[in-house]
Amino acid sequence: MSDLAYASIAELGARLRARTLSPVELVEDLLSRIERRAELGAFITVTAEAALAQAAEAAEEIAAGRYRGPLHGIPVSLKDLIETRGIRTTCGSRILATHVPARDAAVAARLREAGAILIGKTALHEFAYGVTTDNPHFGPTRNPWHVGRIPGGSSGGSGAAVAAGLGPASLGTDTGGSIRIPAALCGVVGLKPSYGRVSRHGVFPLAWTLDHVGPLTRTVEDAALVLQAIAGADPGDPTTLGQDVPDFGAAVHRPVRGLRVGAPADAYHRVMAEDVRAAFEEALGVLRGLGIQLGEVRFPRPVEASIAHTAILMSEASSVHERWLRERPEDYGEDTRARLRRGQFVTATHYLRAQRTRALVREEVDGLLGASCAALVMPTTPCVAPAIGEETALVGGARYDVRDALTRMTRLGNLLGLPAITVPCGIGEGGLPVGLQLIGRAMDEQTILAIAHAYERETGWHTRHPEAP
Amino acid sequence: MSDLAYASIAELGARLRARTLSPVELVEDLLSRIERRAELGAFITVTAEAALAQAAEAAEEIAAGRYRGPLHGIPVSLKDLIETRGIRTTCGSRILATHVPARDAAVAARLREAGAILIGKTALHEFAYGVTTDNPHFGPTRNPWHVGRIPGGSSGGSGAAVAAGLGPASLGTDTGGSIRIPAALCGVVGLKPSYGRVSRHGVFPLAWTLDHVGPLTRTVEDAALVLQAIAGADPGDPTTLGQDVPDFGAAVHRPVRGLRVGAPADAYHRVMAEDVRAAFEEALGVLRGLGIQLGEVRFPRPVEASIAHTAILMSEASSVHERWLRERPEDYGEDTRARLRRGQFVTATHYLRAQRTRALVREEVDGLLGASCAALVMPTTPCVAPAIGEETALVGGARYDVRDALTRMTRLGNLLGLPAITVPCGIGEGGLPVGLQLIGRAMDEQTILAIAHAYERETGWHTRHPEAP
Repeated sequence: MSDLAYASIAELGARLRARTLSPVELVEDLLSRIERRAELGAFITVTAEAALAQAAEAAEEIAAGRYRGPLHGIPVSLKDLIETRGIRTTCGSRILATHVPARDAAVAARLREAGAILIGKTALHEFAYGVTTDNPHFGPTRNPWHVGRIPGGSSGGSGAAVAAGLGPASLGTDTGGSIRIPAALCGVVGLKPSYGRVSRHGVFPLAWTLDHVGPLTRTVEDAALVLQAIAGADPGDPTTLGQDVPDFGAAVHRPVRGLRVGAPADAYHRVMAEDVRAAFEEALGVLRGLGIQLGEVRFPRPVEASIAHTAILMSEASSVHERWLRERPEDYGEDTRARLRRGQFVTATHYLRAQRTRALVREEVDGLLGASCAALVMPTTPCVAPAIGEETALVGGARYDVRDALTRMTRLGNLLGLPAITVPCGIGEGGLPVGLQLIGRAMDEQTILAIAHAYERETGWHTRHPEAP
Repeated sequence: MSDLAYASIAELGARLRARTLSPVELVEDLLSRIERRAELGAFITVTAEAALAQAAEAAEEIAAGRYRGPLHGIPVSLKDLIETRGIRTTCGSRILATHVPARDAAVAARLREAGAILIGKTALHEFAYGVTTDNPHFGPTRNPWHVGRIPGGSSGGSGAAVAAGLGPASLGTDTGGSIRIPAALCGVVGLKPSYGRVSRHGVFPLAWTLDHVGPLTRTVEDAALVLQAIAGADPGDPTTLGQDVPDFGAAVHRPVRGLRVGAPADAYHRVMAEDVRAAFEEALGVLRGLGIQLGEVRFPRPVEASIAHTAILMSEASSVHERWLRERPEDYGEDTRARLRRGQFVTATHYLRAQRTRALVREEVDGLLGASCAALVMPTTPCVAPAIGEETALVGGARYDVRDALTRMTRLGNLLGLPAITVPCGIGEGGLPVGLQLIGRAMDEQTILAIAHAYERETGWHTRHPEAP
């Protein structure tokens, strides 16, 4: 394993800028690693040739003194529902298996502009509608910590790639936890920005009022660097907000001493496996050691909010797929088809009640985050990665549907549009990673980046990697 | 019949200000007329005592030189789903038959602030969910032009009151045409402002993305005066827009020569009864005579838009009533209960498809109104007032459900949130009034007010009144 495999963007960037490392060398090294780890199924498409050409271009530019910034010459991958001009974008589906977009998604264009090199398109749960990334059309993606386990999903390829040293950063999407779940189960950092922070233009929707785009990386600082490049208003996505984009790289280094953080103490948030509980309680101790004031808080109506999330997700997803589901149902995998069909039975009154619940809970959580704390802390998932093929997971003595279990702690962040980050916080059952989640106030990624960074530096969990074969 | 019965706000205001008429005299005269025309069923509650007290107060203020403006001392009525502090607000229902609000709706407070005198609460279709105002709990409201005919609805009491000389102005609400339909069928002016122009705070919702509050009056100038008083942003209704409120009174007198107005020439908008067609074509001739450039335009996807309106209306209405419909269905009238129950079967995918259609058609109509014309013109209703109890109406040789027929020309204005006004434009079958509708660009009430005013002055149709018994 080369020393490049687990280097951060910040480390690689310094070497690229100083020209002690060439983008071509970096990309060649990476491509050979991707080839060696093909059994992980992390990529649907590897863009080797284009990446080498882009690397040569970046090398020239840097040599000519035209350094673009911290992502210049850095290889990144994109979840394969983010459109890329001239490069097929399958959405992990048979329906779009040969779809070659004519344009880049806004985030793809912004990364390109920042000098990043597209290395490939990562695997995902079909149409992002699930958490296992056990894809019926492209095969399962495997967890680099244990190839019999799922990487989580739906951005499972992104999680597996970053965890296995197959590139320092990948963009995923998150509708119920699809960035944070694979990041947590694969032991890397995952950041779901605030709703409105990052354009979804050219990103295939799952449920448009819940969808977010964000990075998976190996360090919190790297997540901030990628977010910096992709954040900001975009006329192509009217839901993006016109606020100024803060300096996330600087925010990472803000002091955290004295910050008040709430740990939800309601029954809903207490459901977790013993290994996760142990890691979480240890993490709380570390946060206290950093001078953070931890307090228990009562998260309002978590069960109602959770039901509202499901109703909105199912309604919007079935709406997006309405036509294909009618015209070519046989082209969907079984689980996605069944779920989309179930969504067709949700009534409008149920959907509208869910949106009302959402508004109510948002107001209450805004109050909570306004008054008593700057962020919430909880595990990212209540258990470590289940085995591939398992439909249920044992959590705290009870069996849950895998999707319900894995999205339990993450989906409310989507419902409320709040920024949320996961960082590795320990090793649980089977030697598998556990994630710690921080949720911030709307449009305040800065505070959770600062806390996550301080935690990461204090514990060093981010330096633990799966053993390569 | 006193000379006050059909005086406009502008005329009454001049006399009140000059103190050649006292508000008390005006209110007393009006109360006696309301009593004499009780058989019309225009009012659910007449606030005689409070109105006389308010009139005495207004008289004192005016005498003391504290004249508040053009509505000072003017009697107005409110559709009985607009909340009034201390005065029962029934929504035309059994469920709220004894409901006495603790606060005024924003529009009620603004009228009070402007010095207007509340004379009573007008009858409506139960919960505003219909167009006949044949109310099972309070009895039918009758058309002053022919007591065997409906006044239209849902603001039927407001239409009947203004038409019968029972006050110069009334506020109604309009979700599919509920201001414009009774205004047209009763031969008065009705204005549905742009979505976002007038606060709905304290107004019982029918379908919150389609609901509008606006005036019924006897002249266009009066409609502008009332709109002036009620328009503007309100923190109590987050859908109100923060734009400056224009001077509508001045806009009424703007020149109209050279304005381009489009008459939709698609099959959907061509369906109308022969008497309405004759009046409409005559009206087009008058508009041409005023120097307006009339052109035929193609309204985009009127059938799809119409279906979208129905899906959104049914979904939101059933959502509003979800709980009562479950807990006390027997308290609804039969037609409202049946319609609310049908709405419970609309699926979320259908609702969301309707909202997408809405966005699409809005964009197309914005383009149409941006490029080729400043306003659209069409009849307000495709037929004159049907008989009370009739479930169908004959329109151009075919029978339509009364609701479908009467809302045909108006409901798309609600879907798109565009301002729309109706003015009397002739007398059709059975001696019943016909209305001419003008639809403007979003947040541009001014242009349609100017055209409607010029038309009204030219034709004098607004000076025709039903004969009192």
